[in-house]
Amino acid sequence: MLRFHHIVRVSLFASKASTFPLTSVSLSTSIPKRTTFALRSQMTSFSSSSSSSSSKLLFRQLFEKESSTYTYLLADASHPDKPALLIDPVDRTVDRDLSLIQELGLKLVYAMNTHVHADHVTGTGLIKSKVPGVKSIISKASGATADLFVEPGDKVHFGDLFLEVRATPGHTLGCVTYVTGDASDQPQPRMAFTGDALLIRGCGRTDFQGGSSEQLYKSVHSQIFTLPKDTFIYPAHDYKGFSVSTVGEEMQYNPRLTKDEETFKNIMANLNLSYPKMIDVAVPANLVCGVQSKVIMNS
Amino acid sequence: MLRFHHIVRVSLFASKASTFPLTSVSLSTSIPKRTTFALRSQMTSFSSSSSSSSSKLLFRQLFEKESSTYTYLLADASHPDKPALLIDPVDRTVDRDLSLIQELGLKLVYAMNTHVHADHVTGTGLIKSKVPGVKSIISKASGATADLFVEPGDKVHFGDLFLEVRATPGHTLGCVTYVTGDASDQPQPRMAFTGDALLIRGCGRTDFQGGSSEQLYKSVHSQIFTLPKDTFIYPAHDYKGFSVSTVGEEMQYNPRLTKDEETFKNIMANLNLSYPKMIDVAVPANLVCGVQSKVIMNS
Repeated sequence: MLRFHHIVRVSLFASKASTFPLTSVSLSTSIPKRTTFALRSQMTSFSSSSSSSSSKLLFRQLFEKESSTYTYLLADASHPDKPALLIDPVDRTVDRDLSLIQELGLKLVYAMNTHVHADHVTGTGLIKSKVPGVKSIISKASGATADLFVEPGDKVHFGDLFLEVRATPGHTLGCVTYVTGDASDQPQPRMAFTGDALLIRGCGRTDFQGGSSEQLYKSVHSQIFTLPKDTFIYPAHDYKGFSVSTVGEEMQYNPRLTKDEETFKNIMANLNLSYPKMIDVAVPANLVCGVQSKVIMNS
Repeated sequence: MLRFHHIVRVSLFASKASTFPLTSVSLSTSIPKRTTFALRSQMTSFSSSSSSSSSKLLFRQLFEKESSTYTYLLADASHPDKPALLIDPVDRTVDRDLSLIQELGLKLVYAMNTHVHADHVTGTGLIKSKVPGVKSIISKASGATADLFVEPGDKVHFGDLFLEVRATPGHTLGCVTYVTGDASDQPQPRMAFTGDALLIRGCGRTDFQGGSSEQLYKSVHSQIFTLPKDTFIYPAHDYKGFSVSTVGEEMQYNPRLTKDEETFKNIMANLNLSYPKMIDVAVPANLVCGVQSKVIMNS
């Protein structure tokens, strides 16, 4: 098993690739210096209020009702440039999200996806068309188009805050979990944006897009359940009205992932779920940043 | 204008009443000693994780999709008894909420409403039938049935944390806003549970249940907009997928309440909203704690 640990400031385009579960220990990867400067230059200034347990982090959880998708807005409110990022934006709520970002005086830097979604069209392409300079981010393993590709162990910096990238394949081949930094100046408790890998008292299906119940089991146990127990779990979806959980809670109460691996695989093999109604529209669109991006890029 | 300030530990059944906007300054009210002991005795022990910026507060925002209602779970996770309360529970999500409370090892003490809701049936009666010992709380001015009635300036203690009660009528005659305590050992920033008085970029209608646009305008400006600007606004509903706002944001961007009073009154008089579809079911039920309570009380 490969192990990554980045000590560089911005580490997109890391040279070592793996789609398999990793622990967050040792072995640094190289990073093009040019990228660092490009990322830092996308920030300008404003003012706003902060939230969460960190005095720096401005955090908002946003909900798209039709697909029950959560979009997350994070910003470093203490940084003079107040750089912000969106995780898993949805096309139909882009105007809402951008309006909020403008009102809060934030500078949107990144529009990121945890994976190629099958149930909604990502907002990243539309965002890029409306806010020049925003960079889309997705995992290299996703096979999708984006401005920047992340790999396990990479860190995505916004101001003085950062997210680390953990590979959590199994729902799709390229799923990643973004976790707030493990440092004293980063939000405490930590926050894990798990996409569809780990849902509150559930998990994403594993029967499409290179899914694998075996891989998902390993991902969650090695990459998420190894985080501190008070780490907040912020999933890409919730269908019952839950907004957040913790690692400790899911380790104790997740009805699927508390089981042994064989039982888990049996559960996932017998879900008898219907064909995902949006998959034939959403996946091709999301592979090119939500279609809109491709149109723009070609024009 | 009356002014209240409680220095006693538990101050339900305060002797001075007012449904009109108040500031949070001066003039204490009496409190029966018996109530204090009754409230403290409803707690037992367990273990759990904490959230929010306070190391003590465990906080969960829960959503009921049909009526777009937010229910809030708050608990003092540092207290050996881990006492908890629910604000604005919905009947159809009671089992979800109680299951979560049980998993988190919390001891539910109070089931509280910000007002008599017209769009969903409260879960308080059902909760009382399922969890003996839980006390329902609503404002005295609501005219509804409950175990405990609160008045402006009262404090609702759970463990070492407390909520203060502010009168914010206008959507209904008896609306209150619950605000986390103004003390160094209480959550920072403060959190205001505004019910339908102040919504994110909106407000509740004022054309039923003793509603008054003039009163609502005064309530929000005197009771909510006077809180620190970083105070979080947690409303009873959101229809656009927002989960939280701040006092500062609403003072700057609320499309109705940033206007002068006359303009606000004109806006509210010309909303041309349809008759609330649930009102004839919900209000009579909610006046008696969600019907179930009345059945239980009579049985």
